[in-house]
Amino acid sequence: MSAETYTAAILIIGDEILSGRTVDQNTPWIAEKLAEHGIKLREVRVVSDDYAAIVNAVNALRASYTYLLTTGGIGPTHDDITAAAIAQAFSVPVKEDPAARKILEDYYGTSDLNEARLKMAAVPEGAALINNPVSGAPGFKMENVYVLAGVPRIMQGMLEGFIDGLIGGDPMLSNTITCDLYESQVAKDLGALQDKYPDVSIGSYPQYRGGILGLSLVLRATDAALLDNATDEVITIIDALGGTASAVNIRGNEIKARETG
Amino acid sequence: MSAETYTAAILIIGDEILSGRTVDQNTPWIAEKLAEHGIKLREVRVVSDDYAAIVNAVNALRASYTYLLTTGGIGPTHDDITAAAIAQAFSVPVKEDPAARKILEDYYGTSDLNEARLKMAAVPEGAALINNPVSGAPGFKMENVYVLAGVPRIMQGMLEGFIDGLIGGDPMLSNTITCDLYESQVAKDLGALQDKYPDVSIGSYPQYRGGILGLSLVLRATDAALLDNATDEVITIIDALGGTASAVNIRGNEIKARETG
Repeated sequence: MSAETYTAAILIIGDEILSGRTVDQNTPWIAEKLAEHGIKLREVRVVSDDYAAIVNAVNALRASYTYLLTTGGIGPTHDDITAAAIAQAFSVPVKEDPAARKILEDYYGTSDLNEARLKMAAVPEGAALINNPVSGAPGFKMENVYVLAGVPRIMQGMLEGFIDGLIGGDPMLSNTITCDLYESQVAKDLGALQDKYPDVSIGSYPQYRGGILGLSLVLRATDAALLDNATDEVITIIDALGGTASAVNIRGNEIKARETG
Repeated sequence: MSAETYTAAILIIGDEILSGRTVDQNTPWIAEKLAEHGIKLREVRVVSDDYAAIVNAVNALRASYTYLLTTGGIGPTHDDITAAAIAQAFSVPVKEDPAARKILEDYYGTSDLNEARLKMAAVPEGAALINNPVSGAPGFKMENVYVLAGVPRIMQGMLEGFIDGLIGGDPMLSNTITCDLYESQVAKDLGALQDKYPDVSIGSYPQYRGGILGLSLVLRATDAALLDNATDEVITIIDALGGTASAVNIRGNEIKARETG
């Protein structure tokens, strides 16, 4: 099965991303995990700590993709409204979950379980808990929606506990070739190559490093042989155009830089 | 006028973010610039290099916010489809813009202006060009939609050229207090403070640093006096709870850490 069969979206809930205070580090980490499991990340949305914004995004995304993962807004403070908003999206009430309360009692001790912490035991009715190996308070799952913490270490701990159980396709593989040509030089040949290999996604990414414009060509496919054939053709194209492939990364392995110029 | 009056969304177009290969550095930079100009960033979406995904997102976001800024997909290669997709969103054809062609001729020289580079002169009919002081090829504007490059340095050069001309409200100001309390300890008092100051947005952000859980409290408002009053109250709350404010940042200035414990 192609990875396109299994799709996902991420909904990042939090004013701290929209204010520019925090760089979103969760998307790249989740994207890689999903790719390893043959699930294609198709969309990311960032919304503020606002009921209507969360409810609308949850309902749009859970209907459009196989999986929706949300991050943020499940802590104990007034701006943590994710559980209530997810409940609203599913038209169910929020209820204290006895198992979640037990987890919090065990983690904090009964005497330290204040009202604010107890808020983290309240989940939408019908939710299944997601284990939090880092800081106690669980995430939860409603149908195809996985509700995770926003702090990267906690989110990662939660996701690693359930991702092996998600149904996915063949893992997405990728090769990257870095070269010293301009995008405009390779554009025509790369377009023709994309037409020849419709099942390989070919991307072209210029970048500045130390004031010099370089170019990374990224090929992605689930079929390793097809991917490597297309990669060989890219190297031939670079060679024919008089360029040099300064680095070639084949499915995660940096191979000796090939002089093609 | 409140910053809430003037809103914006960012649409990030590019498989490289969704594949996890690239961390989005553009959102925090743009968010800060918008805040300085009294424009509230309300939503970010990331979509792949796919016509339908871009068209749907552009039409949803341009209708919902004062401004929409897009990044990525305006280069010379086959995966650069932003101009065509924006044209489709506005139901207009793509046309070669004589001024854009002239810019490219001047930048590359007429003899080096190959077919791929010339693609960067094609913009939706009715678009106004956005100057690119870094690498020639212009961005463009259609109504309230600003179409920018994805490479951060180029995007920044484009945005700095026009952002002073955008109509915004009072700049959003922010104070940050870092302390050694748990979220659950401050949650109740912070919730009451938020109720007392509806025009100050109060956010609470736990983080791990060197294995120790710390807490940043971020207050945001357009009124400096109101903001600083609320900040004083936060410091009083931390004090009353036996905590220490290890760092206090008042509107961009790190003031001497106050011992409040």
